[in-house]
Amino acid sequence: MSRVIALMTDFGNTDIYTGVIKAVIHRICPQANVIDITHSIQPHHVRQAAFALLDAYRYFADGTIFLVVVDPGVGTTRRPIAARAGNYIFVAPDNGILTYVLAEFEHIEVVELASRDHQLPQVSNTFHARDIFAPAAAYLAAGAVLEDFGPYIETIFTLPVPSFDILERRILGEVMHVDQFGNIVTSIGQFQWMTPEKLTLNPRFGADRERLIPIPAGEVTVTVHDTLIKAILPAYGEAPRGQLLALIGSNGHLEIAVNQGNAAARLDVRIGDRVELQIGVSDAAVRD
Amino acid sequence: MSRVIALMTDFGNTDIYTGVIKAVIHRICPQANVIDITHSIQPHHVRQAAFALLDAYRYFADGTIFLVVVDPGVGTTRRPIAARAGNYIFVAPDNGILTYVLAEFEHIEVVELASRDHQLPQVSNTFHARDIFAPAAAYLAAGAVLEDFGPYIETIFTLPVPSFDILERRILGEVMHVDQFGNIVTSIGQFQWMTPEKLTLNPRFGADRERLIPIPAGEVTVTVHDTLIKAILPAYGEAPRGQLLALIGSNGHLEIAVNQGNAAARLDVRIGDRVELQIGVSDAAVRD
Amino acid sequence: MSRVIALMTDFGNTDIYTGVIKAVIHRICPQANVIDITHSIQPHHVRQAAFALLDAYRYFADGTIFLVVVDPGVGTTRRPIAARAGNYIFVAPDNGILTYVLAEFEHIEVVELASRDHQLPQVSNTFHARDIFAPAAAYLAAGAVLEDFGPYIETIFTLPVPSFDILERRILGEVMHVDQFGNIVTSIGQFQWMTPEKLTLNPRFGADRERLIPIPAGEVTVTVHDTLIKAILPAYGEAPRGQLLALIGSNGHLEIAVNQGNAAARLDVRIGDRVELQIGVSDAAVRD
Repeated sequence: MSRVIALMTDFGNTDIYTGVIKAVIHRICPQANVIDITHSIQPHHVRQAAFALLDAYRYFADGTIFLVVVDPGVGTTRRPIAARAGNYIFVAPDNGILTYVLAEFEHIEVVELASRDHQLPQVSNTFHARDIFAPAAAYLAAGAVLEDFGPYIETIFTLPVPSFDILERRILGEVMHVDQFGNIVTSIGQFQWMTPEKLTLNPRFGADRERLIPIPAGEVTVTVHDTLIKAILPAYGEAPRGQLLALIGSNGHLEIAVNQGNAAARLDVRIGDRVELQIGVSDAAVRD
Repeated sequence: MSRVIALMTDFGNTDIYTGVIKAVIHRICPQANVIDITHSIQPHHVRQAAFALLDAYRYFADGTIFLVVVDPGVGTTRRPIAARAGNYIFVAPDNGILTYVLAEFEHIEVVELASRDHQLPQVSNTFHARDIFAPAAAYLAAGAVLEDFGPYIETIFTLPVPSFDILERRILGEVMHVDQFGNIVTSIGQFQWMTPEKLTLNPRFGADRERLIPIPAGEVTVTVHDTLIKAILPAYGEAPRGQLLALIGSNGHLEIAVNQGNAAARLDVRIGDRVELQIGVSDAAVRD
Repeated sequence: MSRVIALMTDFGNTDIYTGVIKAVIHRICPQANVIDITHSIQPHHVRQAAFALLDAYRYFADGTIFLVVVDPGVGTTRRPIAARAGNYIFVAPDNGILTYVLAEFEHIEVVELASRDHQLPQVSNTFHARDIFAPAAAYLAAGAVLEDFGPYIETIFTLPVPSFDILERRILGEVMHVDQFGNIVTSIGQFQWMTPEKLTLNPRFGADRERLIPIPAGEVTVTVHDTLIKAILPAYGEAPRGQLLALIGSNGHLEIAVNQGNAAARLDVRIGDRVELQIGVSDAAVRD
């Protein structure tokens, strides 16, 4: 059995931290198959990690153990936890980092990682990823069960859902991520193209997740800062090189891009900035 | 059997993209052995990737499957392809990225990746590396053959060969890559040191690939921008610390460097800039 | 048997170099389990690598082979070596990079990597990591023994130990590393918290490694540049957000940080800068 441990942290790619984590995992469970999701979450940006995890987890095989550590409160009273949801296990600090991914599942079980037998002999105050979280993931990969680690807990810390308001002719969202191409990923989604003329909005984060909102594609515009983007296109390369466009990204989020350019740099956009999607002039633009 | 899938992309090391690709590969072929060549090709820089692939591929074991995705045309009409050449398979968009590596082989077979059975159930318009290319590489690693994916195709898109002109006493080339040390890698090569006094030019990219040009080593100088470099040395450390030198890099390309310094920063050199190698004063300097 | 080869270099994450190294390892020893410690040592900074290796190695399993290449002298007369120490093997250039890690062991054996049979057929002057060091690590992982590579050697190149002076009421050290969070890691340590009121200094780098120096915790301050830091706290999150603090980092070094901020940027600190730890006003502050 070769179980995957998938890593997401804000430790970057320059220090020894991620290498040491992998060494700890290997010592406890040599046959674990470690996959790096990313180590480049902005330092201490728990919410960006929560959003990235939501987009990434579904591509991993059943049985995957996610080790997700963005942990500004390391060494303080925040608890280390492990959560079982569907066929996945998530190991993380209890600081809200699992909020969005756990919202995808009906049934969740969470334990506190209290067992000293499943931690390194010496636990520092500054590197629980090495001393507590990596050992937990490795013992789970080696066959331990949630109950081995500590008591079940009833409530965990949660983050506010991404800003996503549906008004009559406007949908208000926020920038959740800027990728390395400068593509601006927003909280507006889940869109799905239904026909060449229509797209359907399946609001992942709205109060009413089941509602589908068909929108005439040709009548949609997007505004970020003071820039209005009329080109809602199916692919980056459909815009002339260097031109702004909006499209539905690969995870169903409304995304703003420049064909072969950097949209975030051009528009000076950062995580948290507001984005607005306007439904055109037709009275039938927004329906239940 | 543990087959290697070698990855080269412009996805960087900050987003979840490469992690998701590895998750997709693992689900289809858990025993595949994934090796990252690099994910730091300049965004959309197909030609830089083509050159990097040429330098990297020969070190990989027979049977390796290369997944090479720099894909500004994702979601447009450019085709996804797989090419068999020697004992390797290359999976890539048909945008010229395989031009230089395929030129190394006598016999090449290429298919279009048309089979929907070998793609993810949902194919986005913006992330074919995840939805088409990674599944293709994984199915190949799991035992699928080229014919399973789609029809053979006769012609693929090619890039211009790197600029490389041999004049009577000068060889003109261009900067193909600047590495993380600031070393400037050029299209001028393949050199081989034959004796302490002579080097031999085996022009990989010239019209006449078989011609060897013995050059008296002591009489060669290199010019980039307006800087003349007289020190053609066997190793970085042979120059005084901080001094410019030229040498034959580890892949046989003429390279300009500063011992323990950054040549590209000092000379303000970028990919595409012209480089000139001058053969000294001897009439016998250039011969057939 | 799946032996770990742990990699540390200054090759960065942007070029093909680390991928090619892994390809070379895989061809020689397909079952080797490669773990990247880091490839982001500052270019040519042998001493930073020596310090990082000291912090990382102890977390790896017995039998691990470390491939440690920061090699400004590549292609010159410096020797390639392999050292056996404890249950580890270290493969590296003989430029001092192993100084600090080997100082941890009583018994060390070192050979020169002279055997041409254990190198690539063509050895370049600029990339011995690919041509000499990676093959050596891979052959060792595949079962070769140190004696296969060349003659034992008696002395190797060493670096000066990190600056660490214990005066009557002051301990003088230097900045050894700045991590990606901007945390400033110093040569002052090894501290251990003994009681809430006392900490104990176990000077790893001092002349007198066995001496423990109990220090009244409440009476310690730290100075770097002209900034005095009074908050010596157990964890980052114990300081108000944005405030400077000092603490004992996860590897036992005195560390200067800003809670959820970047201490190195705020204080404009670089590797090599001086750091001073002052023992408060009590006469009993420093004892044997």
